[in-house]
Amino acid sequence: MVALMSVPQIILKKRGGEENSFEELKTLIEGYLEGRVQEGQIAAWLMAVYFRGLSKRELKDWTSLMWHSGITLPRENKNTVRIDKHSVGGVGDKTSLILVPLVTAACEKLYGKGRVKIPMVSGRGLSHSGGTLDKLESVPGFSPSLSVDKLSKLLETQSFFMAGQTGEIAPADRLLYALRDVTGTVDCLPLIVSSIMSKKLAENLDGLVIDLKTGDGAFMQEKAKAKALGKALVEVARAQKVEAVAVMTRMDEPLGFKVGNHLEVEECADFLTGKSREAGLSEVVLELASWMTYLGGRKKLRREKCREACEEALSDPRVFQIFTEMFKSQGGNWDAFLSEGERLRQDWKEIVWKSPRAGKVSAIPARAIGHFLNDLGGGRNRKEDAIDHKVGFEFFRKVGDPVKKGEAVVRVFCSASHDPDSVRERLGKIIKISGTAHRKRWVIGALQ
Amino acid sequence: MVALMSVPQIILKKRGGEENSFEELKTLIEGYLEGRVQEGQIAAWLMAVYFRGLSKRELKDWTSLMWHSGITLPRENKNTVRIDKHSVGGVGDKTSLILVPLVTAACEKLYGKGRVKIPMVSGRGLSHSGGTLDKLESVPGFSPSLSVDKLSKLLETQSFFMAGQTGEIAPADRLLYALRDVTGTVDCLPLIVSSIMSKKLAENLDGLVIDLKTGDGAFMQEKAKAKALGKALVEVARAQKVEAVAVMTRMDEPLGFKVGNHLEVEECADFLTGKSREAGLSEVVLELASWMTYLGGRKKLRREKCREACEEALSDPRVFQIFTEMFKSQGGNWDAFLSEGERLRQDWKEIVWKSPRAGKVSAIPARAIGHFLNDLGGGRNRKEDAIDHKVGFEFFRKVGDPVKKGEAVVRVFCSASHDPDSVRERLGKIIKISGTAHRKRWVIGALQ
Repeated sequence: MVALMSVPQIILKKRGGEENSFEELKTLIEGYLEGRVQEGQIAAWLMAVYFRGLSKRELKDWTSLMWHSGITLPRENKNTVRIDKHSVGGVGDKTSLILVPLVTAACEKLYGKGRVKIPMVSGRGLSHSGGTLDKLESVPGFSPSLSVDKLSKLLETQSFFMAGQTGEIAPADRLLYALRDVTGTVDCLPLIVSSIMSKKLAENLDGLVIDLKTGDGAFMQEKAKAKALGKALVEVARAQKVEAVAVMTRMDEPLGFKVGNHLEVEECADFLTGKSREAGLSEVVLELASWMTYLGGRKKLRREKCREACEEALSDPRVFQIFTEMFKSQGGNWDAFLSEGERLRQDWKEIVWKSPRAGKVSAIPARAIGHFLNDLGGGRNRKEDAIDHKVGFEFFRKVGDPVKKGEAVVRVFCSASHDPDSVRERLGKIIKISGTAHRKRWVIGALQ
Repeated sequence: MVALMSVPQIILKKRGGEENSFEELKTLIEGYLEGRVQEGQIAAWLMAVYFRGLSKRELKDWTSLMWHSGITLPRENKNTVRIDKHSVGGVGDKTSLILVPLVTAACEKLYGKGRVKIPMVSGRGLSHSGGTLDKLESVPGFSPSLSVDKLSKLLETQSFFMAGQTGEIAPADRLLYALRDVTGTVDCLPLIVSSIMSKKLAENLDGLVIDLKTGDGAFMQEKAKAKALGKALVEVARAQKVEAVAVMTRMDEPLGFKVGNHLEVEECADFLTGKSREAGLSEVVLELASWMTYLGGRKKLRREKCREACEEALSDPRVFQIFTEMFKSQGGNWDAFLSEGERLRQDWKEIVWKSPRAGKVSAIPARAIGHFLNDLGGGRNRKEDAIDHKVGFEFFRKVGDPVKKGEAVVRVFCSASHDPDSVRERLGKIIKISGTAHRKRWVIGALQ
């Protein structure tokens, strides 16, 4: 029998740059959950991890321990394939709401109804970045907090759900994230990877597509850092026999025309019905959808074939039907959502910012827009902040678009307490108009 | 008004290698004492300090904040001079018990009775290192836990006291030390310096002599690290107008003939009565005593003169009288101590380790002896361990001494539960006998 190491010794090993064994990591996390390890000990270890990192083996073990602190969603049967998409976060990033119905429809066509399941566990917005759960909740009545039984039922009946992290999924991660949030250890690659993957592994997946955003509005602003994150995520997934691909996409300006919870759900509906499809959003959605569909078929079809199926699904009315069913199956009232949108346009202040000169839109820095949304009440600076789902921005012009002097670039929806002049002044400082500017491709590449 | 920084932002600054302002440090420590800052936040900051260090300014501020979390011992009047000695810890390090009476007697002669005060706040043993409080408590009835009123009274009546850190002295340090102890942040230079100095500054000193031990049995085994610690201690003291000197002394083998709480108090008595004076102990005591006496006279006399006064005091019976009064004034019963010593020799197992060959004692590694003492019950591996004061070692030979084959090198006092053969076997692995070996000077030098 090997003598158990004391917790201070475990911390000292990490502090000195040594690897912690599986047993040592287990002592830490189980002890913390059971109250035998002090908060301060975990915090000191987390800070030591910030400076010393985790080896591949440690990262695999740590993720696994967090994952197994909670349940794993049971599998209905062996003939289904479970896939999901995870975005590392951005501004105007509403792709999950489009991908779930789109990929479901494409996979129905390619592989048969009910073969591919999408158990999507999402998070909330924080700092400049939005969150899928907040967007979903802008539909009156929608509930993302469901029991494991109900989640399994949804997977069976409609092949997908969109839920929040329940107390049963990776409870260690919830505790640790709360501690990291107050101890300055959020932006630490191995801790980010283990946090993301512990929840995704609890979904009992076969395939995972990671939307690896990079640029001004991403958490990883530098491509090299985003790449390192993507590589680590893919490695940890594969170590647990989950096929994974990380698609690097640009997050320099907000994705799509709209930013803000209610407005983004509107945009998703418009996208799926074909009423309006912003070019960047289309590009990102089709790339992610084709990868998801590819993994949904266990890579047996060529990816071009998968892409074609997704493109075709976009003109299939079935997709918008799945979209509205998605809300309905979790208590959401789509008609009430539409009425809210009408009321919003009647009652709410709309502030339009017009271009002060002729030229091209050369920058709409995503991070500044995200922070502005928070300051107008539409997002969270701190995780306990309440959100006004109706607050948001609607862009009429995106980067690369020509604009005339005095032409509307963006419309702001906010409560009457905000002074239109100062809102316009702040927008004038954020948005850049210049002589030349060109659209860039949104999809940078894929890490397999 | 400057907006207050949030605690996570304060931690992130330190993590990134930036300096924290006085206000930020104050937010941390006051918030922790008042329950507004979480244990995990302090622990994360402490670990970030381990990796990033503290600037001179930060160290001065942090020490000052810890000091002012409690009281400062009031000054009786302006004509007195307060001095103290602090040892960074070692094995067989009993000098405090000798220095208090010796320096008191020397200063009485040089500067007049009651002019120099020694308010000595000491600590307990931990790991391989002994602690003055534990040694004092081997005298039955002795109490190191006294109120500030009683401490002030003792300074007035007999010019010194030997006490433990009370709840009123640097309470922030007590809390922080307990946290550092469990979070792997004990051995961090700025945290060691601020911990030591916050308590010493609370004594309201004019002068401080630091016994900067280095070598096998010291916390700072390398000279360069010990020097850095000494430099930082002296700087922080001077920044608060306390004259300070750090005397670097060797801690390769135990200091003196005896190791163990009861035995070391015996050795101090023998030293002061002249019955037995181990050469290394004499060298270290006289060096420290002369510096203390020098600072006690505000550096007005030459140090050689101070040393002579200390040497003369060693043959003055007044010194041993002060020694016994020291215990008596704090409840100690010297006669009971002497009876315990007699009983110890009658009742207890004495295990003698004899040299397996002729030669010279070439090493008695202090750290191994300290750990052995703990394992025999005479010291603490963990701070909650109980101590048997009577357990200890008595060396008949020290490093550099010639020894014949079969001649006794050390006698061990321990309870009957220990097997003599295994005790001897372990000693045989620790103590080295070789063909040649020579005594080294114990005092390496002084950092002023």
